[in-house]
This record gives sequence, structure tokens and C-alpha cells, in this order.
Amino acid sequence: MSTRAADAEVEETRQRRLETSTAPTEDPAELDRTDPARHIAASAEAYRNWSRWGEDDRIGTLNFIGDAERARAAGLVRRGASFSLSQPFDMNGPQQGWRRRTNPVHTMLDTGTDAAAGTQGFPHGIGGADDVIAMPLQCSTQWDGLGHIFDRGMAWNGRPAGQVVTSDGDLVTGIEHVASVIVGRGVLLDVGRFLRPDASDVHADDGAATGELPDGYAITTAELEACIAAQGATSAVGRGDLVLVRTGRYGRAVREGWNGYAGGPSAGLSFTTAGWLHRTEIAAIATDTWGFEVRPNEFDDAFQPLHQVVIPNLGLTIGEMWDLEALAADCAADGCYEFLLVASPLPITGAVGSPVNPIALK
Amino acid sequence: MSTRAADAEVEETRQRRLETSTAPTEDPAELDRTDPARHIAASAEAYRNWSRWGEDDRIGTLNFIGDAERARAAGLVRRGASFSLSQPFDMNGPQQGWRRRTNPVHTMLDTGTDAAAGTQGFPHGIGGADDVIAMPLQCSTQWDGLGHIFDRGMAWNGRPAGQVVTSDGDLVTGIEHVASVIVGRGVLLDVGRFLRPDASDVHADDGAATGELPDGYAITTAELEACIAAQGATSAVGRGDLVLVRTGRYGRAVREGWNGYAGGPSAGLSFTTAGWLHRTEIAAIATDTWGFEVRPNEFDDAFQPLHQVVIPNLGLTIGEMWDLEALAADCAADGCYEFLLVASPLPITGAVGSPVNPIALK
Amino acid sequence: MSTRAADAEVEETRQRRLETSTAPTEDPAELDRTDPARHIAASAEAYRNWSRWGEDDRIGTLNFIGDAERARAAGLVRRGASFSLSQPFDMNGPQQGWRRRTNPVHTMLDTGTDAAAGTQGFPHGIGGADDVIAMPLQCSTQWDGLGHIFDRGMAWNGRPAGQVVTSDGDLVTGIEHVASVIVGRGVLLDVGRFLRPDASDVHADDGAATGELPDGYAITTAELEACIAAQGATSAVGRGDLVLVRTGRYGRAVREGWNGYAGGPSAGLSFTTAGWLHRTEIAAIATDTWGFEVRPNEFDDAFQPLHQVVIPNLGLTIGEMWDLEALAADCAADGCYEFLLVASPLPITGAVGSPVNPIALK
Amino acid sequence: MSTRAADAEVEETRQRRLETSTAPTEDPAELDRTDPARHIAASAEAYRNWSRWGEDDRIGTLNFIGDAERARAAGLVRRGASFSLSQPFDMNGPQQGWRRRTNPVHTMLDTGTDAAAGTQGFPHGIGGADDVIAMPLQCSTQWDGLGHIFDRGMAWNGRPAGQVVTSDGDLVTGIEHVASVIVGRGVLLDVGRFLRPDASDVHADDGAATGELPDGYAITTAELEACIAAQGATSAVGRGDLVLVRTGRYGRAVREGWNGYAGGPSAGLSFTTAGWLHRTEIAAIATDTWGFEVRPNEFDDAFQPLHQVVIPNLGLTIGEMWDLEALAADCAADGCYEFLLVASPLPITGAVGSPVNPIALK
Repeated sequence: MSTRAADAEVEETRQRRLETSTAPTEDPAELDRTDPARHIAASAEAYRNWSRWGEDDRIGTLNFIGDAERARAAGLVRRGASFSLSQPFDMNGPQQGWRRRTNPVHTMLDTGTDAAAGTQGFPHGIGGADDVIAMPLQCSTQWDGLGHIFDRGMAWNGRPAGQVVTSDGDLVTGIEHVASVIVGRGVLLDVGRFLRPDASDVHADDGAATGELPDGYAITTAELEACIAAQGATSAVGRGDLVLVRTGRYGRAVREGWNGYAGGPSAGLSFTTAGWLHRTEIAAIATDTWGFEVRPNEFDDAFQPLHQVVIPNLGLTIGEMWDLEALAADCAADGCYEFLLVASPLPITGAVGSPVNPIALK
Repeated sequence: MSTRAADAEVEETRQRRLETSTAPTEDPAELDRTDPARHIAASAEAYRNWSRWGEDDRIGTLNFIGDAERARAAGLVRRGASFSLSQPFDMNGPQQGWRRRTNPVHTMLDTGTDAAAGTQGFPHGIGGADDVIAMPLQCSTQWDGLGHIFDRGMAWNGRPAGQVVTSDGDLVTGIEHVASVIVGRGVLLDVGRFLRPDASDVHADDGAATGELPDGYAITTAELEACIAAQGATSAVGRGDLVLVRTGRYGRAVREGWNGYAGGPSAGLSFTTAGWLHRTEIAAIATDTWGFEVRPNEFDDAFQPLHQVVIPNLGLTIGEMWDLEALAADCAADGCYEFLLVASPLPITGAVGSPVNPIALK
Repeated sequence: MSTRAADAEVEETRQRRLETSTAPTEDPAELDRTDPARHIAASAEAYRNWSRWGEDDRIGTLNFIGDAERARAAGLVRRGASFSLSQPFDMNGPQQGWRRRTNPVHTMLDTGTDAAAGTQGFPHGIGGADDVIAMPLQCSTQWDGLGHIFDRGMAWNGRPAGQVVTSDGDLVTGIEHVASVIVGRGVLLDVGRFLRPDASDVHADDGAATGELPDGYAITTAELEACIAAQGATSAVGRGDLVLVRTGRYGRAVREGWNGYAGGPSAGLSFTTAGWLHRTEIAAIATDTWGFEVRPNEFDDAFQPLHQVVIPNLGLTIGEMWDLEALAADCAADGCYEFLLVASPLPITGAVGSPVNPIALK
Repeated sequence: MSTRAADAEVEETRQRRLETSTAPTEDPAELDRTDPARHIAASAEAYRNWSRWGEDDRIGTLNFIGDAERARAAGLVRRGASFSLSQPFDMNGPQQGWRRRTNPVHTMLDTGTDAAAGTQGFPHGIGGADDVIAMPLQCSTQWDGLGHIFDRGMAWNGRPAGQVVTSDGDLVTGIEHVASVIVGRGVLLDVGRFLRPDASDVHADDGAATGELPDGYAITTAELEACIAAQGATSAVGRGDLVLVRTGRYGRAVREGWNGYAGGPSAGLSFTTAGWLHRTEIAAIATDTWGFEVRPNEFDDAFQPLHQVVIPNLGLTIGEMWDLEALAADCAADGCYEFLLVASPLPITGAVGSPVNPIALK
């Protein structure tokens, strides 16, 4: 058989597989852009963790963290350096109103100007200031709870969505159930810095600078593994880890303005990383982007397909809009990519997400 | 001189001192109930830390924590047990509307019932839930920022209150400045359990159970020190520590209903502990009560006088409405009262306080 | 047949009817307290207006008002006296948190104290104040929209509830559709004053004063008609009218404090008035109570059964928590109970209710 | 003297006057663009109404409306046609976050989808929907209260701003004081239609269509009077009238998108109309624009200078962001520009502004 004929046969096989396979793929080239439903179903089926921690489970892959993991993670602290991984919460945030998501509106109930003016009615010279906030729980640095996304009507662990999240909130998997849980070994995968050590890499002329991936760049399993290998032993990823993936998108927003940060194009995880997210048995994952997965995604007409697989099926808790800039610079400087991560959400009863100020301790 | 004459002389001296002293006292019996202004001025003058960390300081006694303290605190973690010290954030909270403080109002932007009904307009079977919160920043478990209280028109570090906190929030000492800072060695002083090992102690018939102090009970410096001595070496308090004082007030609220928890009578620190708070050089302090200090306080007509001394003058960050119940039970069980405490506020720009989910790691 | 035997027969007949009738009754004595479902179904069936104004109707009985009715109503204005029928909107309102209903939280974005302190950053001496509100749409004086209540899964005009009101609001009958509509002839029925001209009437010792009905008092059709007759010709009720029923409940709250005004016991319309509400062809009705209908209602275990009949079945718009005190005093003084009523809701897109400041012009 | 010399002299005189006059001018050409402070002071001084209605006055020029005016206004109603002059209140509004002003966030506490899913816990088939709103009081169609703007530290009637509006709201001139007041004769001045009967008028190629003034167009006193003359007797303006000025800006926004409607350039009243606003003794005025006055204004560096003159000095209540489109079309069609206007604000205690759904009845 001629090489050309052999090539044609390979291509034909690929095409057939592309069109019919019901097994998940980890190769983006094998995705059929026109058929997200098939790929989602295949990945959901393959990686589903329902019942893995019993019928009553509320926390999914966060079960992978136990006291022993936390004790080991605390042992990683060397210098005592503390990094807040939270973006600011204020009106200058990225939100533009999509699905009624605004930036936080912070107003005062009492002020120092009032205290100075003597209008507060308190005795002996005491004065006070007090304040209020109104905000979507996913307006800034946040965790997506397990009730945030449904797959064909089903929530995490195979429960009907309509019985889990009503107008009263998440009656089963509310974020309050992980109030003390999200504490463990954090690992930073600085994919932006790895793939783009200088701005001429990856693509040219895409507006992204050194250490930043261009918008629409889909990070693959192979790239995650190569990044781990390149960063060295401290970035090995395994059971119970809290993985932070830096794309550079937030650094770019700080540099050039939001420019579509919330809901616009961005680098992010490829749909095909679902298998890696499953078999590594990580406890949770967070990125410095709005949407965690690549945007636009790898299908012609789809909305956050990786969310649909990993939240309700794997039971994976996802963090978004984290500020990984200072931590990443520190990791790059000392070559150590692991740390104690304390990222406990506010225990808002029945919330499907929560603002969080994650602390990395090195 | 007869004993009686001597006694009379002592009493007379005490009276004179009571009426005129401009030095602070650590003995509640020496407080003149009718003159809070004099005592506040005396304590403020004696314990003021203004300029101690420079004219530009924004964080006060939190300067006492550095990387070395954090590294040592991380070394305290043995078992990896994680305790959330936050009360739930929901409509069943303690607030009753005082100064427009409500409980958190959590509403849904999208629900599982909508997803199940197929009304969300998303492709390929993905559905979502999303939510919003409106809440006072001091509605539940919280830190008071340094801009929360003023003393005779002055804010922390001697700045005019009206130049620090306007309707735009705290322009100088906003809670965002401590986003990565409040991480260190936590020490629990379980004064409730120490003073009231059974319910017949302290007072009788006051409604408080074992391990709970009665309402209006003012904890003194002597009692804090006796508690430390009784609890043993792990509860020694010193520079840079984050001290948690348990009165049992929150446990009582869980047991019997709020019953005035927000703003009503409660045990708490005596006004006379200001000196101890100053000389121990602790970084911050939190209690399981609404108001941190004893309520009603030790003056006839005063409002939170200890706040007035310690926030704007010492620069002390105060936590309120913490849930110390599970942590206290654990400490009582293993006799170890120290731990790593990660209690980073949400970095709400310009906030004078912040909700927080503090994590104690033992 | 002896009188006694005749009486027994009448009673037996009444009992049989009480237990089995599927026709609605206008006599409260004929209600079976144990079977709200049967009575609700009977009234809903008898008085249903579905399709009366076409399949696409969004406004129900408000269709009874047309330009001609409005022109006639304007002709009722004599003196030009203007009455606001709204309660204050503030934190001192009646709400206590039931189903997350709070009182309005009004906060400032900018203040005069800030302007005076010169911190606002505006040129040439201009200063400003600005504000924000967070409130349930049914926290104070309000209209219930047609999407507020469902009967066995169905909304107004026979639409499935789940297709009408989602997390995105009322997609069909939102309050914005009546933005210009609720303007017409108002008629005050001062049932409180009519039934209780002095405080010894109706009941004794029930806490209600002159002109106030006691809690739990169910106003019947016969009493509404007697009130109309007693008040005279200006209070005749007919097609397109906006009827205001005063019970005195709000006046009592002003006098003695809220005391359960929101959700507690109150006088109100009897369940049996549904027929009158239907056949009079009124456009809308409002009361000075939280719940419009009598509370507790006339069944052992029921929740707002008259709402269930009249909102989704008649398509009747209901106003609640109106302040009728000043208007009622004026009507009693001049004997004229009709006026121009302009009670246009805020056109909040998709709202199932709206705060309103109704204006009566006499 | 030659013509040229005479011209030069006139010009010199004009220049001198331009630079030094402390009298207000009604000719925009006489404004010194570089000196807003002088012109503001001159107009404020000339048109100040302080004490005109006593030292305790809270409502300013709304005092010009009495019962007699209202009765006459009701007499203007002929056909009974009702026009809502409110823009929609929803997330698609014009706000973009300036000074923390967002669009209204409307969320549901209960929904029809929940009712249909049977999750609400109510008996006998009743279901309900309920909702909440969070919004700046000036997010959409609104009245500016008298506490909204200050002039060099002073509020309406000569009160110090800091004693009028604190964090507790407007303690003196809160919008609740006009709850029943803003009802009277409305007059529409359709300046857009008058000045620009076809799109080639006024300016060419400015993006504004027929009946719309271009951005930055300053409407003068002369033009207001010419418009009145052209529209005819029904648009005569005098004491106690509620004047509505249509520029076409809102119609343009509906046509082409917001495009800077909130805070951007717009036609509006010239600074020099202050005298007309004063001597006509109108009760209030409203426009279809965000800012009432022309934007950018007629000074090099100024912010809303006409506001600064008319709100705190005249005591004039101003409406903004009104939808005058349907009413204007009707007035153009029948040639009648007067009507009963009922524009009562929500009586939010202490508010410096209020959303409103104004109703014009013709």
C-alpha cells in the first residue's frame, strides 16, 4: 500500500472514529466540533463519580482530602509567606451584567464623615462606620459549588436538578457543607509561563505578553503533564490536591483592562482534559480566568461543556477568577510549586457558589 | 491607728482615686460608672499605638505577625483537623434590624427547577444555578476593620475620621489591606469552660449552662491570666497571636434561640482588659459574642467603650460572632489550645469590616 | 311535621350540603372548615375568567377599565385634595423575615456630610447625595401582580405556572404590562367604621378601637353590601371600579405597633366573597391589611385560599398594606366615597408585584 | 464713528461684561466658559428662593401646587387616555456603574417553576411567586429630591448640607414629604420636535433623527418660549405647572442603543435657563435625558452647574430619564400639550430621589 493510500486510510479511520465514537478522547483533534452532545455524554459516562462516596454525598471530589492530607500540606510551609489569591471585590470588577451578574455594590450605613459631623447620636465621643454589600456570589474570586451546573436535568450524584436547587437555594449540596473542607496541598501549574516563556511563542501578535496564553488557547492533558514535568517534583499532581492553573489571563486584564474578561474569549482547559481531571483524583481546581475552560470552546455551538461534565458528573469543585500573579512569581523564583492552600468559602446556607479569599502559605 | 481607721483611710483613698485618676485601671472596682469619658481618655492615652508602625500604617497590631510567626504557626498542625469557626450566613441569623443591619438575603438568579423545566435557553442539556447576596458586612462572623470605630473624631493612627471613611468607604485602612495578613498562631481561651465548669458556678439561676458565662459577666485581666494558667502551656499568649475568647454565648444561642444575641446583654471582656490587650502585643482578638466586650458595659451611660479604646487607639482588629463550639470541645479533649488560624477577610475594597470563615487547623 | 322535626330536617339538609356541595357558597356558615380543597375548586370553577379577554391576555380584570371609565373618574375630582395611600418605606416597616421578606434597606452612595467635608471631588462647590434601596417588592404598600399566585400549578388565564414565572421573573404577566392601566374610579368601603362605629361593637375587649375590626373578623358579602348601602350613592360598586376596603388594621398598627401586622391575625375578606368580587366586575381591590383576606382564614388548614381563587382564576389584581386612614377620615367627613385613583406600579420588568404610592384625588 | 469702530466697541463691551458681570445672563453667548463659579454664584444669588415658604420648608417650588391647581388639572382630562412616562426598570437599563449606579437587579424569592415542581410546602395546591429588587434610586425614571444637590455646602432653604443628608438619609427634605404633592397640570414642551421637524435641521450628520436634538445642544430660554408659542395655548407655562421637556434623547436610545445615555453627551437645558425656571414659578420639571441640563455643559470644567443653581437655591424638583415618546406623539397628533400629571414618588423615608411611574391623563 502506498504511503498516500495508507495516509488516506488513517484519515478515513480518524473520520469514522470522529463521527461515531462514544468513548471520550483526550486528543482535541478527535473532537467533532458539530456534536457536543455526543462528546459530553461520552465523557460524562466515562468519568462519572456518582455513588462513589455513597448516596448521601454532598461534597464530591473534596472527599479526597482528609486530615492526613491536610497535615502533610501544613508541613509544606517553610518561610511563612502568605499570598492572597483573591481579586479585589469592588465596582471596578469585570462584570458587565450578563445574566444579572453585577460587580459588588458596597455602601455605607455609617461613615467617618458623619462621626466627625457629630450626627450619629452616640455618647462620649465614640463614632462608627458600618457597611453593606450586594453582590452575585460569582462576581469575583469564587468557588462554584456542586449545585452550580446540571447535566441533562441531573445534579451531582445523580439527583434531579429540580429537587436540589430551588428558589430557596441548594437544599442538598449548598456551599456550607464544605465550610471547613477546602484546605490542603495546593499545586500551581503555571501553564502560561511554561508555554510562553517569551511573547513570540505560541502565537504571534495575539496581544498576550510573556507568560500569558492567547485567548481561545485550549490547554491539553499533554500540556498539563509537560508543565508538571518541566516545573519539577514539587508540582506533581495527585489524589486530594487543589490544583491552580495559571493562564496569564488575569495578569493581562490588570495590564490592559478587563476587555471581555467576564464571558469573553480566554485560554482555558480543553474539553479533553476531563479524563485527566478524573484520574488524577484531585480535590478541586481553580484558574485565573472567568470560565475555567477555554473560550470559545471547541464546539461550534456549546456553552461551557467541560463544566457540564466535571461539576455534576465528577463532583469536581471549580474555582474561577483567582489572582495567581504574585504566587506564580514567587514559585518561579524559588522553583517550589506546592504550598498549603486554605480556601474556605463563606458558609452561605444553600449557596451554589461563594466568594473566597484563598490563602497560599509557602 | 485602729484597724477601723485604717480601713476608712483605704476606702477614702480608693474613692479619691476613683474620682480623679487619669491613669487606666485594670480593676473593675476602680471604675467610676458615671464617668466613661475619663476612663476612655485615660486608657486611650496609655495604650495608644499611633505612629508605632509609621505614619502610613494601615494595619495596626496585625504588624505583629510576620512570616516567621506564620511559619511557626504552621508547625503547630499535627492531625490536620480543620475547624470552620463561622456561623451560618442566612436569614435565620441574629440580626433584628438595628442600624439597618439585616440578616443576609440570599436569592437565586437561576435554579435547578428552571433547568429541569427547560426554560434556561442553554444548548445540549447544560443547566445552571446562580445566586446573589445582600448583607451587612457585620451581619454574621466577621472582622471589624480599623475604620469601624472612631475615638473623639479620630481614626486609627491619629487620622481624622472624616478623611478616612466617607460614603466611598474606608479610603485608608480598608479591609483589603489585610487580605493576606490574618494568618498566624491562634490561641483559644475558653473562659466559659474555665469559669463555669458546672452550671452552679459563677452565678446561679442565670439561664447559662455549663461552660457558659451569664449575660453581663465582665471578664477581667486576672481571669484571662488564670484561664491561661489553667489551660496550660499551649495557651500562653504573646506577640503576634490571634486570641479567641469563648464565653459560651453562641452555644447558648444555638441551644435556646438568639434571644437578643445581636445587641442584647452578654458576657464579654471588661473595659479594664485594655492594658492586657496592649501589653501582650497580640495581633487580633475574636469572641463568640456580638459585641466582644461585656454588655451592658461597666458604665451607666456608654456604648462599646472598649471598642473606642482598642480599635482606633491600639489599632487592634476585632472578630465577633465566631462559632468556637467545636474547636473548644476539641481543645478541651486534647488539652491543646494552640493552632494555625487562617482568617483572611474578603478583600472588599474600602470595607470597614468583612465576613470571614476562619479556619483553625490542629 | 312539628317545628322541631322541621328544624332537624333543615339542619340535616344543611349538613349534607356542607359536606358535598360543589357549588360555591356566599354564606360562611356553609363552609366545611376541614375541606378547603373542595371549596377552592368550587369557587375557582364558578368564577374563572380564563379566556374572557382572549388567550393572550396579560391583565385580567383590569380590562374592565377603559378610557371612558378613566375620563368619568377624572370628573369626580372636586376640591383637588390629594391623598397618598402609601405606608412609609423604611426599616421600621412590618416585615420580620418571613420567606426572606425584609423591610427596605436604604443606604447612601453619597451624603451631605461628605459634601460638607469636601471629599467628593466635584468642581466649583457642587456637592451631591445619592442612594440605593434593596427591598422585597411586597415589603410595604403594593400590588400583587397576576403571576403572584398559582392554583394547582396554573397561573392566570390557564397557563402552566412553570412557563410563566421562572427565575427570570414573570415572562408573561409581569407588572410592567399594567404600567399605565391602574387609573380609574376608586371607591372606599370603610367596613371598619361601618361595622364598628364605637369600640363596644362587633366584639368586646378584642383590642380593636372604634373604626377597627378585630383580628380574625371575616367580612362577608352581605356586610360589603350593607356598608355600600349605608355609605350611600357615592360608594356604589360596579364594573371597572378600584375598590378599597378599610378594616382599620393599619390604623391599629400605627396606634399600638406592628404586633404581627405582617402575617399575623387580621380582619379581612371572607373566602365567601369571591362571588361578589366576580360579579361586580371590579377592576382591582386593595385593603389596609397584610393579607387582604381574613387571617386566620376560615379553614382548619389552609393558606390564603381566597388569593388562590381570585388571582389566578378571576385575574384580579390585589393591593395590600395600603394606608387608608386619612382618606377614610376625609370620606367620613364629606360623605363622598368615590374619587380618581391613580395607582400605577413601578414598571419593573417581570415583577410579580410592585411597590406603589397610590394617589386618591377628591 | 464708523460701523467697524462701533462693532469693535460693542465687542469690547461684551467682553468686559463677559469677564466681570455678577448678574446672571440668559444669553449663552455671554457665558465665560472658564468661570463657572462666577456664573453659578450670580444665578444662585439672583434666583434663590430660601425662606420664601418659611424656615421649615421641605418642598420648595412644589409649594406652587395647591388643591385648586390640582382640581383645574383634573379638569383637563378629556378622553381618559393614560400614558405611563416611565422607562422599564430592568438590567437592560442605561447604567454602567458610574458612582456605583447599577441597573436594577430583580431576583425571585419564589417562582412558578418551583410551584410547579411542588417544592414550596403550601397546602391545597396554592403556589406563589415573590421577588426582590436592589437598585439605585436614580437608576431609571426618577425624581431628584431637594437633598440631592448642594451648593457650596448648603442644601435647600439654606441649611448646611451635613445637617440635612447623612448616612441615615435626608433627615429634612426626604422624598417622603412630597408623597401626595406631585400631582398637577403637566405641560409638554416638545423641543425636539419643534426645533428639528426634519433631520436636516439644527445640525446635519449628528446621528440624531427627526424630532431629536443632537448631543450637546443647549436649549435656551428663547427656544423654550418659541416652542410654547409654536405649540399654542395649551402649552402656556405658569405657576404650579409640571413641565416636561422632550429632547428626543430617549427615543434615540431606544432606536440605537444606550450609547452613553447615562452620563454621556446629550441635549438639555442651557445653564442660562435658570431665570426662566425661576420666574415662571413652575413646580417641577422633567426631561427625557439622564442629566436634565445640556452635556457637556457650557463651561470648560464644570459638573451639572444648572443643578447646582436650581435644586438647592430655587428648591426645584427635577425629573430625569422620563419616557415622553408616546405622550409626545399623542400631543403632536391632537395639538393639546396639557394634561393631568400624577407623578408621586415612592415615599422612601429619607431618600434623596425616587423611582417613579408618572401618569399623564389626557
